[in-house]
Amino acid sequence: MLQKPRGTRDFLPEEMEQRRHVEGTMREVASRWGYREVCTPEFEDLDLFTIRSGEGIIQEMYVFEDKGGRMMALRPELTAPVLRMYVNEGRTLPKPLRWYYFADCFRYERPQKGRYRQFWQFGVELIGADSALAEAEVILLADEILAASGISYEIHVGHLAFMRTLLAALSQDDQKKIRMFLDRKDWAGLDAHLAATGNSELGADLTALAACRNLQEAFSITGQMHEGDRISELFSILDQSGVSYTLDPGIARGLDYYTGMVFEIFADNLGTENQVLGGGTYRLAHLFGGEETPSCGFAIGFDRVMVSRGEQPAPHQRVAGIAHTAEGRDWALSVSREFRRAGIRTELNLSGRSIGQQISQIARTADYALVIGERERAESIVTVKDLKSGVQKVLSLPDAICEVMGREPC
Amino acid sequence: MLQKPRGTRDFLPEEMEQRRHVEGTMREVASRWGYREVCTPEFEDLDLFTIRSGEGIIQEMYVFEDKGGRMMALRPELTAPVLRMYVNEGRTLPKPLRWYYFADCFRYERPQKGRYRQFWQFGVELIGADSALAEAEVILLADEILAASGISYEIHVGHLAFMRTLLAALSQDDQKKIRMFLDRKDWAGLDAHLAATGNSELGADLTALAACRNLQEAFSITGQMHEGDRISELFSILDQSGVSYTLDPGIARGLDYYTGMVFEIFADNLGTENQVLGGGTYRLAHLFGGEETPSCGFAIGFDRVMVSRGEQPAPHQRVAGIAHTAEGRDWALSVSREFRRAGIRTELNLSGRSIGQQISQIARTADYALVIGERERAESIVTVKDLKSGVQKVLSLPDAICEVMGREPC
Repeated sequence: MLQKPRGTRDFLPEEMEQRRHVEGTMREVASRWGYREVCTPEFEDLDLFTIRSGEGIIQEMYVFEDKGGRMMALRPELTAPVLRMYVNEGRTLPKPLRWYYFADCFRYERPQKGRYRQFWQFGVELIGADSALAEAEVILLADEILAASGISYEIHVGHLAFMRTLLAALSQDDQKKIRMFLDRKDWAGLDAHLAATGNSELGADLTALAACRNLQEAFSITGQMHEGDRISELFSILDQSGVSYTLDPGIARGLDYYTGMVFEIFADNLGTENQVLGGGTYRLAHLFGGEETPSCGFAIGFDRVMVSRGEQPAPHQRVAGIAHTAEGRDWALSVSREFRRAGIRTELNLSGRSIGQQISQIARTADYALVIGERERAESIVTVKDLKSGVQKVLSLPDAICEVMGREPC
Repeated sequence: MLQKPRGTRDFLPEEMEQRRHVEGTMREVASRWGYREVCTPEFEDLDLFTIRSGEGIIQEMYVFEDKGGRMMALRPELTAPVLRMYVNEGRTLPKPLRWYYFADCFRYERPQKGRYRQFWQFGVELIGADSALAEAEVILLADEILAASGISYEIHVGHLAFMRTLLAALSQDDQKKIRMFLDRKDWAGLDAHLAATGNSELGADLTALAACRNLQEAFSITGQMHEGDRISELFSILDQSGVSYTLDPGIARGLDYYTGMVFEIFADNLGTENQVLGGGTYRLAHLFGGEETPSCGFAIGFDRVMVSRGEQPAPHQRVAGIAHTAEGRDWALSVSREFRRAGIRTELNLSGRSIGQQISQIARTADYALVIGERERAESIVTVKDLKSGVQKVLSLPDAICEVMGREPC
């Protein structure tokens, strides 16, 4: 028996309805903030992703050579494609651009619980704005989208200037190593590395910064920074707006990619693989041939949001099924047309079996059975059976529609 | 400058809004008919597609070897994946299954006008029903979806039994060659081939059938067929339901894939590449390890529908932009929150420039400018400027919301 590829998923209707419901909620919130959807190709030139993320990412992607000998990759994320699109087609549009996307991405790694090879992201990019208010906007928007999605979470907001200031005197290579220890929260490894490189005096400041949750304290650990005023303004806006967040100046992830504010959001109920969002301020357009353009944005791991949310079936919509005899067929077709015009999901039984057998079939998916035989056809009426209560009524077509919709007869 | 891959597209917001609008219309119609969405992976084992369509399709697909040495293909169509999913996960569900999908597919051929390497299909599969009424249902549903999409088109409905009956005495190989001539409407080539193979007497019947538009005439060309009653019933249902269609018993496309009814729909305004839908009755599940299961369905070429439809911008939604001074910032954030809660798309100006400059920026994307400075903050009011008329009003927050929504003050 043929199977789906390893690490991928099939979605049956119940699950798709829940996913589309949450996707719709995210779209609605984003569009109220003035964000509009864009769409880029499923695959891109490999270069696009190595320019953004380095050669290391090749190992984690689906890469293939096309017939023209070009190396292509199934997209592992959307920020690089969206900025490539901005450079190609969006440069003359009035800025800032508020764009969002909802799209599938691919990673090629050993499948694990909750980590699939095809996964979905909902993300936004705010392109061409350079202010604390812009950075605050994407954080506030992320908060509103996740709240509307029905999950519980914690927001961590940091700024790379703190860590950069502490590490400023070190070589790029050394900074990179220290970042890896910080990312893994490997304090022993960090201490050993600092001792070996003669930078032991940094240890206390780095661990203090990682544990720090207070802005004034972070400034006193790092000393004066020229980004200080902007950082203060960002956190002042967040405080004023009432969003609940944790200051986390020790965030070191993305240090070679983000340029200022960084933030991460963690779901309360997902254990160790609990990050549902990552974002921050960055500059990418100039790497793709455009002008240097300040941007910020985030990507939400849609599949993790769905896991965190748990089973919450989409609102139930009433369903009508139509049982009919051969004589009733054409009237059944007319009835189905009018029911659908009224907005009711209506399934015509296709089996040609006895009315009793048709009603049994209908009862598996519908709330009401409409029974249509010779009498109903002759009198242009409908017998409506409520499949929960068993109550049966003989009604005119308009009244049958009202009955199934739960309205007073017209 | 990096570019999108050849034959693919980027979609800016205006175009995405139109696409999502039409997609939403298609979803709404399908779900009223009881069809529910399913989703399968973007790529599948190569075998899945060669089993359905033969080895020839490999040349037309994006094929790649994964790190486990398995040959994978970006899906060229969705019927095989959906039926594979049915065999894996849907066999125990109450039948018939009414499933739809909206998904992107890939073809690897020279890009041409209107034919892209990544393209979108909206399709339905009705799995586990075997009746004229089932076949009629998918034709009527296709008609309603395309009518709701706002295009003009012609429906051609045929049945492969006619052609099969005429060719029954010939070898499979010979049938295949004849089908190719019929597909291309190459009557001279067909005559030459029939003469060369000693089947000249077939020529008159084949060309008569291809030109035939009347059911009784089709039966008289082909003689008695054991599918006759079912075919008559199908066309009787179509006639009763009032759908406008052309009988086309000469459809030979898909002869080695479809098993009975076949139908094609052509847009009125697309020139030679005008087919927007293809569908019919088929059996596939048993090829993928399931039981033989009667099915029918269709796929709509979504991109061609969009071209046929032309530019029809999605309904305009009023947009508010907020210009504010530093003193007005926090009140501006509160106003933006309340406007969004009321459902209004609201863009906060992020530039920090003068109010006049902010209003100029806002005028490029919004219908109303909300101006917020020290006075507005102190009095909890909003200055609302209609950017079309230039009229400016000073209002309470609730009245400002009503003003922008075009409602009477509350």
